[in-house]
Amino acid sequence: MDNLTLLSEIGEFGLIEKLNKDNVIYNKSTLLCIGDDCAVLDYEGKQILVSTDAMAEGVHFDLVYTPLKHLGYKACVSNFSDIYAMNGEPKQIVISLSVSSKYSLEALQELYEGMRLACKKYKVDIVGGDTTSSKSGMFISITVMGQADKQQIVKRSGAKKNDLICVTGNLGAAYAGLLVLQREKATFMANPEFQPDLQPYEYVLQRQLKPEAQQKTIELFKEKSILPTSMMDISDGLASECLHLCKESKVGCEVYLEKIPIDYQTIKTLEEFKILPETAALNGGEDYELLFTIDQKDYEKIKDEKNISVIGYITDESLGCKLVTPQNTTMDIKAQGFNHFTKE
Amino acid sequence: MDNLTLLSEIGEFGLIEKLNKDNVIYNKSTLLCIGDDCAVLDYEGKQILVSTDAMAEGVHFDLVYTPLKHLGYKACVSNFSDIYAMNGEPKQIVISLSVSSKYSLEALQELYEGMRLACKKYKVDIVGGDTTSSKSGMFISITVMGQADKQQIVKRSGAKKNDLICVTGNLGAAYAGLLVLQREKATFMANPEFQPDLQPYEYVLQRQLKPEAQQKTIELFKEKSILPTSMMDISDGLASECLHLCKESKVGCEVYLEKIPIDYQTIKTLEEFKILPETAALNGGEDYELLFTIDQKDYEKIKDEKNISVIGYITDESLGCKLVTPQNTTMDIKAQGFNHFTKE
Repeated sequence: MDNLTLLSEIGEFGLIEKLNKDNVIYNKSTLLCIGDDCAVLDYEGKQILVSTDAMAEGVHFDLVYTPLKHLGYKACVSNFSDIYAMNGEPKQIVISLSVSSKYSLEALQELYEGMRLACKKYKVDIVGGDTTSSKSGMFISITVMGQADKQQIVKRSGAKKNDLICVTGNLGAAYAGLLVLQREKATFMANPEFQPDLQPYEYVLQRQLKPEAQQKTIELFKEKSILPTSMMDISDGLASECLHLCKESKVGCEVYLEKIPIDYQTIKTLEEFKILPETAALNGGEDYELLFTIDQKDYEKIKDEKNISVIGYITDESLGCKLVTPQNTTMDIKAQGFNHFTKE
Repeated sequence: MDNLTLLSEIGEFGLIEKLNKDNVIYNKSTLLCIGDDCAVLDYEGKQILVSTDAMAEGVHFDLVYTPLKHLGYKACVSNFSDIYAMNGEPKQIVISLSVSSKYSLEALQELYEGMRLACKKYKVDIVGGDTTSSKSGMFISITVMGQADKQQIVKRSGAKKNDLICVTGNLGAAYAGLLVLQREKATFMANPEFQPDLQPYEYVLQRQLKPEAQQKTIELFKEKSILPTSMMDISDGLASECLHLCKESKVGCEVYLEKIPIDYQTIKTLEEFKILPETAALNGGEDYELLFTIDQKDYEKIKDEKNISVIGYITDESLGCKLVTPQNTTMDIKAQGFNHFTKE
């Protein structure tokens, strides 16, 4: 703990100033940021998208295996993902941070460094925040604002019968990464001398610790003039999100199990844990891929895109939400997902 | 604990649905609210104001003497106050809530009921939120969005030499209320049978537990065509806010101690605690009054307003920030305010 600065030495205003001194502004819509009662934004006629996400220590992250820089990066990216999920562009965030006074300034600067990295990559401005102490643990809440043209906003509710159901990237990887981290933590607790070889898990660990949001997919939509009929991001697992999307759109769906994209390293990792890859893809969280539906006429525009998989199609509401196995058996899609309020 | 619903019984999505089912939308700028990845707002050319405030159990509130309904009300009002402090109108909020799974649904419904009451009074829409569990304690983070005409936004940075310094209402009352609550808690801990007589403290308790924001002052400005040269809300105490305002405006100030408005009940209450009323007014937090400066030519417009007091004037930056006593002694304004990171 040599040379670390205690938060009690610098106080709340000193902290806010120090944390934000390296902020860079990327957007001309940011007229005024930290230092007044409010930030001032001007979207010049575009519509405003707003979303908020909270993360609590011990529930959403474990500081034993989560570097603070990665945590800051992920906290931002998971918020940006909600804006992309409406076909918008994230532009600004405000950060609420509550930490025990036992944290050092340097620890929080690491966290902010990660946030700034994410903001740099996605060209988002940090325009405000509140930093207070907590009795114990760390709590991060980020609110993101973004913009979209009125005609371009894609909701969860627009899917219609016969639309194709698509997902970006691959699923289950973040969950596989989490399993590895939890195992390493247990090993480390038993034997702190143990040096794990994490190289075979690099991809799944990165998906868990430093996920990315689907900016490139939104850009592809623009480039190819694709307007999905409905869309949402996959943060709680494909099964849960399919049910949400169908409920909001008042439709049913058929999803083909063998069409769900799963990365080879994810499959190998899950094998070690004796978990079926499909189970992780359907119910593992934090993939931040996009689930969307398109009109069949747009199929030509996406069929050669490596990052997009067609996994099924929309049916009538009365038919429910179904999974079809390679053996052609049909079963109901059920959401297991993450329930943070389960009894311990 | 009879008939209470455990959060573990209803899960995260059930909780969000139940908490938000009685929400009312007041603003046509709210196009889409809870139920999608983002809320969608349209301010039709107006500028966007954004601010965020976090409150942690045991630091900002003590559930022993804070009814959850009041807590919800106050959490909203303290955010609205930041928008009024820029001469804007609060329009939407998103709510991040992290609570231990030991809370009941009914407790959180009380909290939300208080938030809805505040939103009804100030005509603000709840457009989103995130509700997660915490390992211990409750953490509330609210982000508020509001709108203002470009030419009407008032920053902290516009005060100029010879401007008059004004405050709304009266100061120190919320701090007096806090002292009473802390004393009653100590008495109650020693003797749970004791029934306190809180009637003599009604006003200061209300200022602490159920504060209001200065909507009416913003309306008055509009009505009388007053555009303050600078403004901020008083949440950390007048002394701290004067220093902020002068720093941002690059000016100095002279504030007359006997001009600082303090309510009679505040004075009587503080006497019991042997605290000078001026000390509470200067350093007590959570009053949510407005501190603003106006050009001298606007004096006529405010001189008969009972809710506005002129407490001093702006000087040259080189003269510093000064308090003038009734005996005409001058001293430096120093911020004690609240520092949440002080060593315990």
